Amino acid sequence: MTQRSANVIGLGLIGGSIAVGLRQRGWRVHGEDARDGTEQRAIEQGVVDRAGLDPDADITFVAVPVLSVVEQVERALTTTTGVVTDVGSVKTTVSEQIADPRFVGSHPMAGSELDGLDGADAEMFNGAVWVVTPTPVTDDVTLARVTGVLRELGAEVVALSPHHHDQVVAVVSHVPHLAAATLMRLAVDRAEEHAPLLRLAAGGFRDMTRIASGRPDIWLDICAENRTAIVAALDELIEGLASMRDTVASDDRDTLLRTLAGAREARTNLPGRVVHPEELVEVRIRIPDRAGAAAEVFTLAADLGVNIANFEVVHLAEGNRGVAVVLIDAASSDVFRGGLIARGFKPSITALS
Amino acid sequence: MTQRSANVIGLGLIGGSIAVGLRQRGWRVHGEDARDGTEQRAIEQGVVDRAGLDPDADITFVAVPVLSVVEQVERALTTTTGVVTDVGSVKTTVSEQIADPRFVGSHPMAGSELDGLDGADAEMFNGAVWVVTPTPVTDDVTLARVTGVLRELGAEVVALSPHHHDQVVAVVSHVPHLAAATLMRLAVDRAEEHAPLLRLAAGGFRDMTRIASGRPDIWLDICAENRTAIVAALDELIEGLASMRDTVASDDRDTLLRTLAGAREARTNLPGRVVHPEELVEVRIRIPDRAGAAAEVFTLAADLGVNIANFEVVHLAEGNRGVAVVLIDAASSDVFRGGLIARGFKPSITALS
Repeated sequence: MTQRSANVIGLGLIGGSIAVGLRQRGWRVHGEDARDGTEQRAIEQGVVDRAGLDPDADITFVAVPVLSVVEQVERALTTTTGVVTDVGSVKTTVSEQIADPRFVGSHPMAGSELDGLDGADAEMFNGAVWVVTPTPVTDDVTLARVTGVLRELGAEVVALSPHHHDQVVAVVSHVPHLAAATLMRLAVDRAEEHAPLLRLAAGGFRDMTRIASGRPDIWLDICAENRTAIVAALDELIEGLASMRDTVASDDRDTLLRTLAGAREARTNLPGRVVHPEELVEVRIRIPDRAGAAAEVFTLAADLGVNIANFEVVHLAEGNRGVAVVLIDAASSDVFRGGLIARGFKPSITALS
Repeated sequence: MTQRSANVIGLGLIGGSIAVGLRQRGWRVHGEDARDGTEQRAIEQGVVDRAGLDPDADITFVAVPVLSVVEQVERALTTTTGVVTDVGSVKTTVSEQIADPRFVGSHPMAGSELDGLDGADAEMFNGAVWVVTPTPVTDDVTLARVTGVLRELGAEVVALSPHHHDQVVAVVSHVPHLAAATLMRLAVDRAEEHAPLLRLAAGGFRDMTRIASGRPDIWLDICAENRTAIVAALDELIEGLASMRDTVASDDRDTLLRTLAGAREARTNLPGRVVHPEELVEVRIRIPDRAGAAAEVFTLAADLGVNIANFEVVHLAEGNRGVAVVLIDAASSDVFRGGLIARGFKPSITALS
C-alpha cells in the first residue's frame, strides 16, 4: 500500500494540528504557509514533511483566515486531484461559491488558547466534534472520504447544512465571544470609578471572559461573514437579558427560580467529549440516483441526535448508484430507521456482534 | 499562649473551608449548622472541634445564606464577646442593619464548583481576595483583628465601603452569572430547532456558561438583596450588547476591532492570584480620634491600588488614640503617602530591610 498523502494550506494552530496529526498517523504531509519562515519552521518541528502542494494528494485541507478560504479552495481544486475541505468558522459563503463535487466544507469545534504553529497538537481533534457541511453538489464519495480522514484524527463527525451550521455557531461560539468582550469592557469602564474592581474578578468572571482573549482580527472576519446569524442571536440574547432584568427588578422569584434552575439543568447536561458506544449496528442504505442523497442521510442523523461511528459509500458495479454503510450506536437504531423510512430511504440494519 | 478560638455559624462550602483552614492553623473551632447531621459530619471530618458556639471565641464567622445573615450576626454579637464578621455576597443591608463596633462585614472572592461541607478546603482562600466592608461604626480594633485572621487564611484583604462592594460584585459576579444563565437558555431554546446544537458547544461556550451551574436558591437571595446594583449593571450590559449588535450589523470594522482589541487587552491584564511583593515598607499613621479613621486608611489603599500586606492598629497608653501600622509593597509607597497626606493623615514610612 502506498503512503497516503495530504496537503495543508495554512499552518496556524488548526492547520498545524491537522498536519502533525496526520503525519503521526502515517500520512505524508505537504504544507504551505504565506508567512515568512513558517514552512521552514513546520518542517523543522516535524509538523509537515515538505513545503508546497502534492498535486496527487488524497485530500487537501484549507486552513486559512475566513476571508481567504474561497480563493484557496479554488486553487486547491485546480492544482490537485483529490478531495478538498476547508476548516473555516463560517460555512454559507464558501458553500455557495464553491460548486464542485470534490469539495465539502467542514469546521472542527476545537481550539486552544495557544496561537499559531507552536500550539499545534496531533491530538487536538481527538474526541472533538467536527462538523461537515455537505450540499446537494457534494459527491457522496467526497463526503465519505473527508469524513473518514476527520475520524482518523479522532473527531466525531456531525453533518449540518451550511446555513444551519452558521446559525448554530452564532449561538454557541460567535455571540458568546462578543458577550464576553462586552462584559470585559463593562468591567474595565467601571474599574475607572472603582479601582479595586478588577482585583475582585474571581473564577466565574475569569471563566466567562476567557474567550475575550482570542485574536481580534479573526473575529472581525467571522462577524463580517456570519453577520445575519450573529445579529439575530445577539437580538435574542438582548431580549433574554431584558426579560431577566425585568424579573430581577420586579423581584419575581418564581420566574427567576425557573429560569436559573432551567439553565443549571441544561448546563449540567451539556454533552461532554465523545464517548464511543459499546454496541454498534450497521445500517445499509441504498442511495437513490439523485444529487446529495448521501449528505441527506448524514444530516438526518445529526438532526435525530444519532452518533455516526463510521460512514462509507460503497459503489456497486453497475452504474453510478451506491450504498451508504453507516455504523451507529445500537440504542439509536429505531429512531434512525424511522427517520430514514419517513424520508423514503429503505434501510437494512444488522447487529454487529 | 492559650489556643485561639473561633466560631463558624453555617458549615457549607465557605464556612467549612474557614473552619478547617483555621483548625489546620492551630485554632480551636466551634461550629454550628441548622441542617440535620451536618455538625456531626463536620466533627467526623475534622472540620470543627465541636458543635455549638464558644461564648469567649476571639472571632465568629457567620456563613449562612444571605437572607439569614442579619439574624445570625445579631445572635453572634449577643452570645459571644469577640469580633464578628459575615461572608455574604451582598453587604449593604447587613452593614446598615448592624451598627455594632464589634462587627465588620466581609466577602471572600473564592469558591468552587463543589457544594457544601464536602467541598471544604483549608486552602480555599490562599491567594484569594477577601473584601472587608468597614463603616464609620466599625471599631479600628475589630477591623484589624478580622483582617489579621483573613490574612492568616492566606487571603489578600481589600477594603471597600459596603455600597461600593455591592456595585462591584454586581459587575464581576452577579451579572456574569445571570448572563451565563441567559446564554444557556438561548442555546437550549435554539437546540429544539437544531438538535445537534449542544453537541457543538466547545470550550469557549463551556467556560462561559460554567457559572450557570451554581445553586439557584443562593442566586435568588443575591438578586433580591442587590437588586438595584444588578439592574443597573444589566442595563449597562444590554446597552453594550445593543451597541455591539449595531457595530456588527453595519460592518463597522474599525469600531469592532477597537472594542475587541480593548477587551482582549483588559482580559490579558486581569490580575492573577496574589503575588507577594519582594520589598515591603512599613507605614505608620497616627489615627485621629474620630470614628472610622482606620477604615478610611484601609479603603484609601484599595482605591489607590495599593496592596496591604499587613494591617494592625496599635493603641497608645494615653487615651483611646491609636497608630495604624501598615505594611505595603515598597513600589507603592509614594502613591500611598501622597493619598494619605491629601486626606489629612501624617504617615511616616520606614523601609524594612
